[in-house]
Amino acid sequence: MSISGVKALTFDVFGTVVDWRGSIIREGEQLGRAKGIDIDWADFADRWRAGYAPAMARVRSGELPWTRIDVLHRMILYGLLDDFGVTGLSEDEKDRWNRVWHRLAPWPDSVPGLTRLRQRFIVATLSNGNVALLTNMAKHSGLPWDCILSAELVRRYKPDPETYLGAADLLGLRPEEVMMVAAHKGDLRSAQAVGLRAAFVARPDEFGPSVEVDVTPEADFDVNAADIEELAIKLGC
Amino acid sequence: MSISGVKALTFDVFGTVVDWRGSIIREGEQLGRAKGIDIDWADFADRWRAGYAPAMARVRSGELPWTRIDVLHRMILYGLLDDFGVTGLSEDEKDRWNRVWHRLAPWPDSVPGLTRLRQRFIVATLSNGNVALLTNMAKHSGLPWDCILSAELVRRYKPDPETYLGAADLLGLRPEEVMMVAAHKGDLRSAQAVGLRAAFVARPDEFGPSVEVDVTPEADFDVNAADIEELAIKLGC
Repeated sequence: MSISGVKALTFDVFGTVVDWRGSIIREGEQLGRAKGIDIDWADFADRWRAGYAPAMARVRSGELPWTRIDVLHRMILYGLLDDFGVTGLSEDEKDRWNRVWHRLAPWPDSVPGLTRLRQRFIVATLSNGNVALLTNMAKHSGLPWDCILSAELVRRYKPDPETYLGAADLLGLRPEEVMMVAAHKGDLRSAQAVGLRAAFVARPDEFGPSVEVDVTPEADFDVNAADIEELAIKLGC
Repeated sequence: MSISGVKALTFDVFGTVVDWRGSIIREGEQLGRAKGIDIDWADFADRWRAGYAPAMARVRSGELPWTRIDVLHRMILYGLLDDFGVTGLSEDEKDRWNRVWHRLAPWPDSVPGLTRLRQRFIVATLSNGNVALLTNMAKHSGLPWDCILSAELVRRYKPDPETYLGAADLLGLRPEEVMMVAAHKGDLRSAQAVGLRAAFVARPDEFGPSVEVDVTPEADFDVNAADIEELAIKLGC
């Protein structure tokens, strides 16, 4: 474990800091009761999320011009509403529902863990979510970020190297002074490939109880932690 | 006064939120005592700040490529050290002294005022200072920003219209949903010219006791306030 010289921690957000699946199911069920929509909201959440990587891939390949996540989420949402046969939502209601991604709830350890880490490190987002989404989410859920960094600021999506290097550059730091924190090993390995440090946080429940997630610690990550509070302890906070 | 529909307040920082002059004089005097440098630190501070607009103008005109404020501050600093005959500082010491701009102290009303405003609005920086500078300053001085926005993110300096419009776009808001807050009337008028609202905060002491500053309220600003706490009161916080 090599952490000397680390000055900032940049966090993946969806899945690592917030529970997108549980949040969407909860709010979907409320919407369903209010509007008389009786569908499997867990399936809806999973399929919304499943549309995300292919939509970003269309941007990363150049098939689509730069398009922020709010817009990609809405494109996917419109298709899902059709697939699930949901009718009767106004445009305002669809827009409000699309913005559920701005209201995702943190895992229980996220706010206390970040609060501890913030005493010693700069704590920033480094998410494919857009700046407005991340700012509104932080305000909604009390996430104590020092700085909102997003793929939007370099107009490239993770895992493109420009996202990690751009974040370090905006923080005025060398890559090795920045530690990427994520529940997704691919994100961490992409960050490591351009010189950042890596901290893995296990989120076994990200995809729900029936999906097994690889949460095995890895020796080549600088830190492996069960959650963000344990990360704080391991980083001496 | 028209504030309905305002969702975010974007703040000029140097002079409006922090007292650059007092901070640089105080830290300069400390540096002087530590290193045996006996110069007029108020004059040093004023000349450092005076070099800022011409340096940005060179970027705005295209004479220099995009260059962040940390680098412009250092260019000006090197000239000033020569002019004042200051020798014997190592490169590390010069770099640390250049980063005094990351450690500027807030006016007494800034933190309590922002804390109140944050209950109701998104509060963000919108400064020509770079992201690292603003992030470090917030951490140093406890400024409770929801989001760090900077000219650096659009690679244009205020008062270029792209800075104001880019901030609104990143916040996912229409220009009229964003209110620029500044102690500088030109900054506010440039924001208004592209559709933002404007709140003037009087900072009569920004340039020291012997420089008279125009702090007259103006009817065409949406709000005029004596300080950021009064701004919070006037905005119903």
